[in-house]
Amino acid sequence: MTSELFSPLFVPDVMREAVSDRAWVQAMLDVEAALAAAQAEAGLIPGEAAAAIATSCSADRFDCAELGRASRGAGNAVVPLVERLSGEVAGDAARYVHWGATSQDVLDTAAMLIARRALALVVTDLDRVAHACAVLAGSHRGTLMAGRSLLQQALPTTFGLKSAGWLVGVVEARRTLVSGSAELAVELGGAAGTLGAFGGDGVAVVGHLARELDLAEPVVPWHTGRSRIAQLGSSLAIASGALAKIAVDIALLSQTEVGEVAEPAEPGRGGSSTMPHKRNPVGATLARACARRVHGLAGVLLAAMEQEHERAAGAWHSEWEPLRDCLALTGGAASWVAEVLEGLEVNPERMRRNLELTGGMLLTERVSMLLAGRIGRLEANRVVKEATARAAGAGRTLRDELVADEVVTRELSAGEVDAALDPGGYLGSADAFVTRALELYRREVKRS
Amino acid sequence: MTSELFSPLFVPDVMREAVSDRAWVQAMLDVEAALAAAQAEAGLIPGEAAAAIATSCSADRFDCAELGRASRGAGNAVVPLVERLSGEVAGDAARYVHWGATSQDVLDTAAMLIARRALALVVTDLDRVAHACAVLAGSHRGTLMAGRSLLQQALPTTFGLKSAGWLVGVVEARRTLVSGSAELAVELGGAAGTLGAFGGDGVAVVGHLARELDLAEPVVPWHTGRSRIAQLGSSLAIASGALAKIAVDIALLSQTEVGEVAEPAEPGRGGSSTMPHKRNPVGATLARACARRVHGLAGVLLAAMEQEHERAAGAWHSEWEPLRDCLALTGGAASWVAEVLEGLEVNPERMRRNLELTGGMLLTERVSMLLAGRIGRLEANRVVKEATARAAGAGRTLRDELVADEVVTRELSAGEVDAALDPGGYLGSADAFVTRALELYRREVKRS
Amino acid sequence: MTSELFSPLFVPDVMREAVSDRAWVQAMLDVEAALAAAQAEAGLIPGEAAAAIATSCSADRFDCAELGRASRGAGNAVVPLVERLSGEVAGDAARYVHWGATSQDVLDTAAMLIARRALALVVTDLDRVAHACAVLAGSHRGTLMAGRSLLQQALPTTFGLKSAGWLVGVVEARRTLVSGSAELAVELGGAAGTLGAFGGDGVAVVGHLARELDLAEPVVPWHTGRSRIAQLGSSLAIASGALAKIAVDIALLSQTEVGEVAEPAEPGRGGSSTMPHKRNPVGATLARACARRVHGLAGVLLAAMEQEHERAAGAWHSEWEPLRDCLALTGGAASWVAEVLEGLEVNPERMRRNLELTGGMLLTERVSMLLAGRIGRLEANRVVKEATARAAGAGRTLRDELVADEVVTRELSAGEVDAALDPGGYLGSADAFVTRALELYRREVKRS
Amino acid sequence: MTSELFSPLFVPDVMREAVSDRAWVQAMLDVEAALAAAQAEAGLIPGEAAAAIATSCSADRFDCAELGRASRGAGNAVVPLVERLSGEVAGDAARYVHWGATSQDVLDTAAMLIARRALALVVTDLDRVAHACAVLAGSHRGTLMAGRSLLQQALPTTFGLKSAGWLVGVVEARRTLVSGSAELAVELGGAAGTLGAFGGDGVAVVGHLARELDLAEPVVPWHTGRSRIAQLGSSLAIASGALAKIAVDIALLSQTEVGEVAEPAEPGRGGSSTMPHKRNPVGATLARACARRVHGLAGVLLAAMEQEHERAAGAWHSEWEPLRDCLALTGGAASWVAEVLEGLEVNPERMRRNLELTGGMLLTERVSMLLAGRIGRLEANRVVKEATARAAGAGRTLRDELVADEVVTRELSAGEVDAALDPGGYLGSADAFVTRALELYRREVKRS
Repeated sequence: MTSELFSPLFVPDVMREAVSDRAWVQAMLDVEAALAAAQAEAGLIPGEAAAAIATSCSADRFDCAELGRASRGAGNAVVPLVERLSGEVAGDAARYVHWGATSQDVLDTAAMLIARRALALVVTDLDRVAHACAVLAGSHRGTLMAGRSLLQQALPTTFGLKSAGWLVGVVEARRTLVSGSAELAVELGGAAGTLGAFGGDGVAVVGHLARELDLAEPVVPWHTGRSRIAQLGSSLAIASGALAKIAVDIALLSQTEVGEVAEPAEPGRGGSSTMPHKRNPVGATLARACARRVHGLAGVLLAAMEQEHERAAGAWHSEWEPLRDCLALTGGAASWVAEVLEGLEVNPERMRRNLELTGGMLLTERVSMLLAGRIGRLEANRVVKEATARAAGAGRTLRDELVADEVVTRELSAGEVDAALDPGGYLGSADAFVTRALELYRREVKRS
Repeated sequence: MTSELFSPLFVPDVMREAVSDRAWVQAMLDVEAALAAAQAEAGLIPGEAAAAIATSCSADRFDCAELGRASRGAGNAVVPLVERLSGEVAGDAARYVHWGATSQDVLDTAAMLIARRALALVVTDLDRVAHACAVLAGSHRGTLMAGRSLLQQALPTTFGLKSAGWLVGVVEARRTLVSGSAELAVELGGAAGTLGAFGGDGVAVVGHLARELDLAEPVVPWHTGRSRIAQLGSSLAIASGALAKIAVDIALLSQTEVGEVAEPAEPGRGGSSTMPHKRNPVGATLARACARRVHGLAGVLLAAMEQEHERAAGAWHSEWEPLRDCLALTGGAASWVAEVLEGLEVNPERMRRNLELTGGMLLTERVSMLLAGRIGRLEANRVVKEATARAAGAGRTLRDELVADEVVTRELSAGEVDAALDPGGYLGSADAFVTRALELYRREVKRS
Repeated sequence: MTSELFSPLFVPDVMREAVSDRAWVQAMLDVEAALAAAQAEAGLIPGEAAAAIATSCSADRFDCAELGRASRGAGNAVVPLVERLSGEVAGDAARYVHWGATSQDVLDTAAMLIARRALALVVTDLDRVAHACAVLAGSHRGTLMAGRSLLQQALPTTFGLKSAGWLVGVVEARRTLVSGSAELAVELGGAAGTLGAFGGDGVAVVGHLARELDLAEPVVPWHTGRSRIAQLGSSLAIASGALAKIAVDIALLSQTEVGEVAEPAEPGRGGSSTMPHKRNPVGATLARACARRVHGLAGVLLAAMEQEHERAAGAWHSEWEPLRDCLALTGGAASWVAEVLEGLEVNPERMRRNLELTGGMLLTERVSMLLAGRIGRLEANRVVKEATARAAGAGRTLRDELVADEVVTRELSAGEVDAALDPGGYLGSADAFVTRALELYRREVKRS
Repeated sequence: MTSELFSPLFVPDVMREAVSDRAWVQAMLDVEAALAAAQAEAGLIPGEAAAAIATSCSADRFDCAELGRASRGAGNAVVPLVERLSGEVAGDAARYVHWGATSQDVLDTAAMLIARRALALVVTDLDRVAHACAVLAGSHRGTLMAGRSLLQQALPTTFGLKSAGWLVGVVEARRTLVSGSAELAVELGGAAGTLGAFGGDGVAVVGHLARELDLAEPVVPWHTGRSRIAQLGSSLAIASGALAKIAVDIALLSQTEVGEVAEPAEPGRGGSSTMPHKRNPVGATLARACARRVHGLAGVLLAAMEQEHERAAGAWHSEWEPLRDCLALTGGAASWVAEVLEGLEVNPERMRRNLELTGGMLLTERVSMLLAGRIGRLEANRVVKEATARAAGAGRTLRDELVADEVVTRELSAGEVDAALDPGGYLGSADAFVTRALELYRREVKRS
């Protein structure tokens, strides 16, 4: 099956390596070695046995594809791995391999190791995204552009504020992933969650194992208590969603008819085989695709929470590849958005030109508000609405209609009308919001 | 359309009231009143206007269904509500209604008020669930039962540990909901997120509004930064999942052939119209149904994160009813599971009897482990597997086969075999895990 | 709870009525009446009893909300309905109410009746959509506009072809719904799917019932064989998706910077309370919202297929409201898109103007193809790409660069270049595709 | 990344090969070759060019992983494939490679070829499932067992009828897949769906291409009309659901406490590393896992229907791997269920013994019905309910209570009571339903 054809498009190589078959096998072996060490520390097995086991716990000694094929009988890859590992371990120590553990202990704990490493990559790329957003927010505080609601121009805003909104979304998503990473916990319960084989030493071994692997220690085994996995999937889905929000904005701003930003140009990037004039927003496109897939896969992890008794008949098995893919594809989305934002071409002139497309109509709210203070909100809305309609109908500017309107002229001077129609004068708290977003960034991300 | 036929089955009345049409209208009016108060505090509108507006902000004055019908033109219910509210407010103050706000400011903030109230109900029922689990865990520490993996009996455990596992899942879900509740924030940005109409006072008004409504103050407006909503949906979905895990266990343990627990018996409850002998696990059934629906709806909220520009064309609108239903149905699941656990009939004798169904085979792991310490894991597994197969084939008990086995008798005395086959002697850390779960409960839930 | 506040915005009144509580109660009563009639026909109960039951089967006699509340004990609304109906039926006939049926028989068959009526409404609105698409396709065969890929202008197309693509999607979705409607089947199996209470007459009663209700006759009872429900949900989701495709195009074409279409203008429609210049694409927005919700709900129906044994403990219960909402919201999407397309304002001049925004670069493919026939595809691509880059860099038109290019002039005359850059001359099969789509429409929809 | 570690567990090798990277590259090359042939047939390119292109269209010439890495610039793998293919094609013919097509034409059509081959494998395994169900239905027509609702024993049924229900679900799912397979269509539209490059010959080329590849001819290009893909995903999800229904029944019937069936025993299959007594329902477990994953992935395909303009910016890209995985995992579910059913061990004695667990209470419906014919349904229910309660309370059998009950003895003789409590006498239409299911099987599957 492999997926060397499609996956490199979505997921960067370093992430693909972090969640690869080999990485999983090594993580399972890391768990087996740490388990033996923890048991030796608790006095359950000889220290030399643990050392001998550790020596054999290298993925180089095993063939991932062969393990995959051999797993069909037992229902998971740990069973054949333990068999082969026992064969690798010299002499008497072999009998202590996987002592008292169940397959799920090893696979779940390995998943936590994989998740921790992959989350670190995701966070690194989210930091790149956050940094790029912060740079854009700071340098475009004064760059006027149209704010848009329901895809219609609504009011003036700044590209700085738009970037600040992206930034806050990414910082919030990052915060959840970082705190989630700290909750990744070892799994150790044995076949029914009692650690029956360890006599009275089970809890101690769990603690040793957690310290060996630098993972958290759970209150009880979580073989069928899957909030940890579901939360991980949801956090990744939310991070993907925050990235998709940036991506859809980039794609929309890149439209031929809008042209306010463009993804970085490089030879061979975003080009079309037959339409050389195109500058496709490839990064935004692929980030959106990644996010949509994560959303579907996170749903599989949520649905998998209903697990039967002490270990489930199917729901657990449904988690493995979706969890891996949630990690990889969120990393893919983060990486693409980082690349896009770091090289983003911003066109302030086009932003300004688009802002003027409607001949001042974007400031109708401001004129309405100004009038509303004098003649009431509903009456003001009526007057401005009619002037707007007349302007649109006659192809004149809103200013011309306003300064010719009887009610308006009674309340406002021409100078007041002109001032009201200046987009730069109606930015409210845009700048203050940028400052708040940058403070958040400095507090949570930059220092880290 | 209404939904008085189906919804009472899933959602308790108090929750249905908390998310009702009327509750939404009142929440929107609360936002309008608080907005006016915040603006008066900032000196943007007269204090008397704010007072006059507050006076009119009672849902009794408005017809929910009429507002619903009137919303088709504008695309949301805030537009007609503001019109009608302006008509209700006496005199000059009417012009200050909804001053400088956009519909989404009101609807989003109202959603936060609804969410806070509904979350409190969910947490109350989760506390009931947690309490019931804690009672079961404590009182059944020593109640032996079969631990099951892949729906097969695997090893002995206790009903106390099973309850402790449920408890930890619920406490974790509760923790996320409680911390999520603290992050519910006001929304105030005006049409494009700049608060253009408020001049330099926007940030101050946001702060005043947050204090008025006792909600958090966001860093920037979040019209299209929806992690707050997606996280809320995911947290509810995870809570539902933790409840569904309990429900599926109850349903499985209630099976005619298992009979280890039964839902509380009441006249008319869980009965079948034609099969009076049945004790249907109605509560578990409906809790599972609630959870499955929440999982689907949470997916809608995740998918809605990709929102265009300053305010979205569809994704936002897709959130309203799914968010309401996630709240209501998670409440439904919590309420049903609470009711089930509070009156759960536990049958320790049946648990014990089921544990003995396999004639000692459940302790094969223990015998294997015991032998493994002397002859190695793989060899021990082989010996025990063969004895098991002989016992099953001949209809004899495992003990008979073991004490007749050459390898076994070389390594173990008959007394050692008997001790190994005692389920009560192979509970490992079950008791310790119960203690840890109860400590967690006391730390996080009971004191609160 | 009710949902008179939000639902009218999404779902038209006629559909809301078709899936209302009252409609469900009437449908259940229709099933009870038809069941009695079928049993009378089979000689199982007296004909007068069936007649007496039929007389009482009017929803006016029952209180939907009271039934809802009373259903909590039994787990569904059929149990209290049957009790109350038995009370309504005069004399001896009461004993034959619901004879030998199980609650699920009644609720499932009622769901089929609701689905049939609701599907008819959906199809009616899809027909409106199809008709409007056909009109647009026919009347805009020659209306040039930019074809866009990845939101970038790519090549010329016609608004007729775009409309034809919408049309084909709607006709295909309609086809699936119509054939699905014909497969809606009665459910009758009794408590375990055997119709034990009917002796040897069960199959005959199923046949009579199907004819009474004009529904299909299933091969076996389908209490836990839910492909019918899952397929219904999926078909509705696909129809919603086809409508969302139209809606997203409308929303994008309506953008202030594109302005190629506008939703119909009516007083109070699509207006903003504070921004009178806006013409919000409200219909497209709400149709997209409906579709996203249907997609989530259809997932609940898919996940519900895994049902235990003869009747399920939760999955079945999770279907009811999601199925109702899939029907209603697909109807909502169809109704909104119909309204939008029927009054759509199309601006061919703006389409033409946008097409010329890039100064001929949209025809680069054509120039490349023309050159490729003489100098090979890769070389042609290179030449045109460089000319494009030079034009973009120097702010000149592509034509100027091409007629100045050494390779181009060697192969093409200036007249050939000019002809190649005429968008109307590069429409390929656009017209033929429109014709094919209209033929499909006439074949499948118009005649019906 | 690869997925040789996990995927073999879920997906059989022949399916993994059918959807492998290499299979995709070969399918894309098949499309390129067929496109050239179709263009030659239409006289657009020389026949020798088409022949030369065909010669080079072998996947052996290309490195899948290298193509994957090279695709990051252009956004899909077709761009580098066309470049490399052009390099492979000798001489002048190279210029005709990919003539006038767009990347999506090739990838979509290749996906249809992959889907056709994979669907054939799925159908083959569904046929195995159907055959096994038919054998079980036929041979267990008279095998009594408990019918269960809400996981409670409800009424007697037969294992034949249960198998017949599985059979009908599989036949229905198969029907949809087979008819869906016939609708797999070529995609050919060029960059904007007009086939601009083909002048007036576009429609003819589409027809030739469809015949070359033995795929259907679409009415119009379907670059953004994705009902075909969404329907494919939904059909696979429904097939998976029908298989999951079988799997959950198998898992439940295999429970230690039920023991009515067991998955086939083979050395190393379903065993536990530490619990040799276990016969894990591994096949059912993995089939359920496959189905859950397909359900999540089908949701991605549904959500992807909202595609912008002529070619989408992300939604299309989100389809590729989910579509592949829907095919593979449905094949996995089918293969596992086939294997399980073909070797299923059925234990009629245990079925009979479980049926008697409740001491006749399973026949309460029958007694109620019998009494209802004489004293009315509600009164009969009351009498039987009370007798049931007395029996349960006193640990006596239902028969004893009934023959001692005043009302019962007034209406029924002891012989009538005994006859009523015979499960074999209360099977209603079970046998007739089995016959109908087998007829369906013979009509739709066996002959094919």
